[in-house]
Amino acid sequence: MSLVDKLNWRYATKKFDSTKKIVADKLQTVLDAVQLAPSSLGLQHYRVLVIEDADIRAKLRGAAYGQAQITDSSQLIVFAAETNINEAFGKKFIDNVAAVRQTPRENLAGYEGMVLGAINGRSPEQLLVWAQKQAYIGLGVLVTAAAEQDVDICPMEGFDPAQFDEILGLKEKGLTATVIAAVGYRADDDPTAKLAKVRRPQSEFFIHI
Amino acid sequence: MSLVDKLNWRYATKKFDSTKKIVADKLQTVLDAVQLAPSSLGLQHYRVLVIEDADIRAKLRGAAYGQAQITDSSQLIVFAAETNINEAFGKKFIDNVAAVRQTPRENLAGYEGMVLGAINGRSPEQLLVWAQKQAYIGLGVLVTAAAEQDVDICPMEGFDPAQFDEILGLKEKGLTATVIAAVGYRADDDPTAKLAKVRRPQSEFFIHI
Repeated sequence: MSLVDKLNWRYATKKFDSTKKIVADKLQTVLDAVQLAPSSLGLQHYRVLVIEDADIRAKLRGAAYGQAQITDSSQLIVFAAETNINEAFGKKFIDNVAAVRQTPRENLAGYEGMVLGAINGRSPEQLLVWAQKQAYIGLGVLVTAAAEQDVDICPMEGFDPAQFDEILGLKEKGLTATVIAAVGYRADDDPTAKLAKVRRPQSEFFIHI
Repeated sequence: MSLVDKLNWRYATKKFDSTKKIVADKLQTVLDAVQLAPSSLGLQHYRVLVIEDADIRAKLRGAAYGQAQITDSSQLIVFAAETNINEAFGKKFIDNVAAVRQTPRENLAGYEGMVLGAINGRSPEQLLVWAQKQAYIGLGVLVTAAAEQDVDICPMEGFDPAQFDEILGLKEKGLTATVIAAVGYRADDDPTAKLAKVRRPQSEFFIHI
């Protein structure tokens, strides 16, 4: 199947087969793709939690309107935006660039200036929205890479971020839950699998100029 | 190459080869993937402009710090969030679901209630951020699908949305420019192509629970 065929095959899986786990190297492939998602200035403004623990997932389900995907999927993925994007965060990022590219830090002064300018020019609220948007790029990559690996996925916004932060201890980590996705394999009898995929006609979605 | 290899191959292309165009069916494949991006409740809260016109792109470049990718790429993609997400938008969406799934509208009353609740429960500012986040999912799918098709891409936030809206007449269409991406092929002498890709170590990006 082509990638487009696979994206047509996928759907927001409502009922997972709780007996089927994603094998480790396949899960790692999907995560490798997410790690390669681009982000504004390369900052990777979020972290990604990969949750298998049954007790934690049972608690999270209670903070997500009881949705069964939370517990019945193979793993729950939580995209958590960084809440401490500040000068120290920007400088640590430039440290990493210098190390990976084996270049003296002073060669990166221009890049550092852009990074710190982008950080200092935003209010705390703007920094959070900025970080969250980058997490959604990661979600887009996750959805595509999962489909490419024949893995089912259900992205979800229907959860209480404050309760997720509490259950996962995210506040102490300088993170806040932003968007989540259950990954695994659809149950044979998930009725939503049979529903036709709904998208706007391309003429009402794309504008060619 | 595997998809992960292709995502490693890609980078934020700074210098495009302005003589190379993406062939039509390849571009269509990438756009088909974007059209299949998921969105909250399936609403597709944004539209996607595919801009080839040289004069328009010259103007847009002036509204994007003169970045050459705007004019030298094969196409410029503009993700534009819907600014009129209201009850009419929600009802039109349910109309489309009913048509595509050939189901009486009254069978969708529960779905419609969720959609209208999600819309009516958000302030205008929250509706815009909600729409913009969905556009970033589309960007994540675009980046992945372009890489899969061996197409280079440079996602960009560095532009003036108000000027883009003006140049593209987006306000009248109930849209606002949110994030953009140049697509095409890297120039042989783009020095940034040779830089090592920088990502946080996976131990500082993923949290396994």
